[in-house]
Amino acid sequence: MAQKIAVLGTGIVGQTFAERLTALGYSVTIGTRNVADTLAKTAPGPYGNPPFSDWLKANESISLATFAEAAQEASVLFNCTKGDASIEVLALAGVENLSGKLLIDMANPLDFSNGFPPSLSVCNTNSLAEEIQRAFPTLNVVKTLNTMNASLMVNPTLLSGEHTVFVSGNSSQAKEEAIEFLKAFGWKQASIIDLGI
Amino acid sequence: MAQKIAVLGTGIVGQTFAERLTALGYSVTIGTRNVADTLAKTAPGPYGNPPFSDWLKANESISLATFAEAAQEASVLFNCTKGDASIEVLALAGVENLSGKLLIDMANPLDFSNGFPPSLSVCNTNSLAEEIQRAFPTLNVVKTLNTMNASLMVNPTLLSGEHTVFVSGNSSQAKEEAIEFLKAFGWKQASIIDLGI
Repeated sequence: MAQKIAVLGTGIVGQTFAERLTALGYSVTIGTRNVADTLAKTAPGPYGNPPFSDWLKANESISLATFAEAAQEASVLFNCTKGDASIEVLALAGVENLSGKLLIDMANPLDFSNGFPPSLSVCNTNSLAEEIQRAFPTLNVVKTLNTMNASLMVNPTLLSGEHTVFVSGNSSQAKEEAIEFLKAFGWKQASIIDLGI
Repeated sequence: MAQKIAVLGTGIVGQTFAERLTALGYSVTIGTRNVADTLAKTAPGPYGNPPFSDWLKANESISLATFAEAAQEASVLFNCTKGDASIEVLALAGVENLSGKLLIDMANPLDFSNGFPPSLSVCNTNSLAEEIQRAFPTLNVVKTLNTMNASLMVNPTLLSGEHTVFVSGNSSQAKEEAIEFLKAFGWKQASIIDLGI
């Protein structure tokens, strides 16, 4: 049976990961706050992309559930939420559904309160991944992929030439597991740089 | 007559730029707080490198002067000081010796007060180069090269493969002038990325 993955977040990043992971043979459930509300939205996405429900119809093997349902079933979680919502979303997923699991976190704590370009709400001596790890100590957080756009995250060969992806986290085992996903996406071992904890 | 350059700072970065610029045919004066004090130091540098006076003897075409003297004579300045000293050093150089000139700034505002690795004393919604530009509005500050070690700054081919250098600053003309130095160091036009202001 295919390994179950929870993709947290219904935006472009979540859709991109859900499609790619499904194509790779994983069983993907996207988590959202409220399934009915998410399906009821009819406005196009922020990039002119179709409403989520249209996208979901076109990707019938992908499921939609609450954050908690998606996390409960899954052995691995992808944090595709906005950085300023990530900790709240993980709390909604339920600490009992996170414990001992790998979270691949590519969220950035972007602060758009002063318009574009955004600043960071957490930086320098702190980071979003560290905040998540402190808030959910039994979760194995691996930070990666957050330095590029979502299409490139899951298809690195879209960009020609040498380019790299960083990986960091407290658990070596979790990092190894995350790196297997990166390789499945197309990242070469030599392009994956472990920054440590 | 060779164009006169002031290299502000006597450390490894300053020495590296002074040697490279001299080899390229520029007339280089290194600026320091107190010439006699700098020449009197006999302890090895922080990387086991020779004391400054020994280095200077081995590079006899390079001059040593106060920050103000070095800046006064020069048409271009390189900020090779530690980031936490840069604004004070430029004040010592004298605003009248900076006005209308290009400052190529590769300093990083590193805060070692909590040991290694350092954090940044300025980041996110502010930067050292912006602080310098605000403090000295008539100086043309161009930030570049601060993402790598000094040997690589002036000899980019030491690292194989594609790699890039960023340039930013308020003055397009000053950026063009800085880019000519980068090219003289060996940077290819395609590797130089203008980040804007």
